[in-house]
Amino acid sequence: MPEKPLILVTNDDGITAPGIRALIEVMNEFGEVCVVAPDSPQSGMGHAITLNSTLHIENVSRKENIQSEYSCSGTPADCVKLAVNEILDRKPDLCVSGINHGSNSAINVLYSGTMSAAIEAGIEGIPSIGFSSIDHSWNADFESLKRHIRVITGNVLKHSLPEGIVLNVNFPKAPIKGIKVCRQAKANWIEEFDKRTSPQGKEYYWLTGEFVNLDNGSDTDLHALEENYATVVPVQFDLTAHHFMKNLNTWDFEN
Amino acid sequence: MPEKPLILVTNDDGITAPGIRALIEVMNEFGEVCVVAPDSPQSGMGHAITLNSTLHIENVSRKENIQSEYSCSGTPADCVKLAVNEILDRKPDLCVSGINHGSNSAINVLYSGTMSAAIEAGIEGIPSIGFSSIDHSWNADFESLKRHIRVITGNVLKHSLPEGIVLNVNFPKAPIKGIKVCRQAKANWIEEFDKRTSPQGKEYYWLTGEFVNLDNGSDTDLHALEENYATVVPVQFDLTAHHFMKNLNTWDFEN
Repeated sequence: MPEKPLILVTNDDGITAPGIRALIEVMNEFGEVCVVAPDSPQSGMGHAITLNSTLHIENVSRKENIQSEYSCSGTPADCVKLAVNEILDRKPDLCVSGINHGSNSAINVLYSGTMSAAIEAGIEGIPSIGFSSIDHSWNADFESLKRHIRVITGNVLKHSLPEGIVLNVNFPKAPIKGIKVCRQAKANWIEEFDKRTSPQGKEYYWLTGEFVNLDNGSDTDLHALEENYATVVPVQFDLTAHHFMKNLNTWDFEN
Repeated sequence: MPEKPLILVTNDDGITAPGIRALIEVMNEFGEVCVVAPDSPQSGMGHAITLNSTLHIENVSRKENIQSEYSCSGTPADCVKLAVNEILDRKPDLCVSGINHGSNSAINVLYSGTMSAAIEAGIEGIPSIGFSSIDHSWNADFESLKRHIRVITGNVLKHSLPEGIVLNVNFPKAPIKGIKVCRQAKANWIEEFDKRTSPQGKEYYWLTGEFVNLDNGSDTDLHALEENYATVVPVQFDLTAHHFMKNLNTWDFEN
């Protein structure tokens, strides 16, 4: 690489979250870092983009830091689009998203703003990784994750990633036994809506639920996380169920 | 089936959109219909769910209609979760989402609230179809789509769908030549942000862009739509890139 790699850092917990701060520290070891992250928490935003509202960017770089930083009013996917098209003067060599405060294993990849940012960068042709910690808390231990982030990032910069694939990395609580390549577990949220009544007498709901592993496989991300391994799932955004095409072609679509 | 199939109808353009009205009319021919749809437009919401705010449901059924109808303050994915867990007393036999005012072919499946509702139902184990028309306009011709919707819906009720797969159906402008099973085209949005200045002197952006087909294949949804075929893409929500697992396992993750 002729110059230092340009690394775009984003997340969905917002630019002030401890998780992204830890990620920035590691990325500063690898290259020139530009942070473009939401100005407020965007958890559960999935791959939302802002179509019916305006977007604002603020340069919030601080002179004591080597990285440049921009906060954005939009979703994680908006942040990546704005970074690539408006903020950066060349295409990043890498995009990293996270470290998310909370797991994005199994089916959570679909709801995850963290992973949608990574996927958005992947669509733009940028090698990309989403990092998440199973620990939801604001003061989660991110320090012990750094060496694993270094190893995974180093691998991606060395090998790159094939077109159409990004990495979904999840960390268990420490001590971490090692890193395992896994598939996405089949799992589900059993929703339980918490029904309440407002002071005005109107009923409303909070979404709550219990996460249930429906997958007995020992090769899944959920299984490996339970055994205290960090998990790496290669994620694709061609959603075509190619294995079902032949069967579907036997259906009678004449009318 | 011992009783009439129970069909959940939702969308992302909001419960008053002409597209969902057309879909409800067709579904009333097949079974008992319950509509649970957003109370306002939710285009581009992807698989967003409402974690940090409350959810409201309103029974907006009208006595002149045979279907029951509920409007919901949340996203399309929220609508499905609320329908299954709070509104319906049994699991629906089918979920249909749409008819979306605008295409959800190719990569748009990721940004689409319409398809996220269908995928959410798929996660809940409900055979599910998202319908979209390439015509964005509020007064698009939905009448000519009805016979194709009948054929596809009839097939899904007859054959069901394998676990983990939902259908993404897109309609070209009329006249429609027929229905084709396709794969998701590789395509991209070339974003162009429209930068403006507010009356207060603050810069802001509108997301705009041009959609570019990067795929020469004749088996893609984009290709078939261009040739005036309705397209059926089987969509999976296991995002694991299984074909890259072996390669990824050769990386050195020791540290």
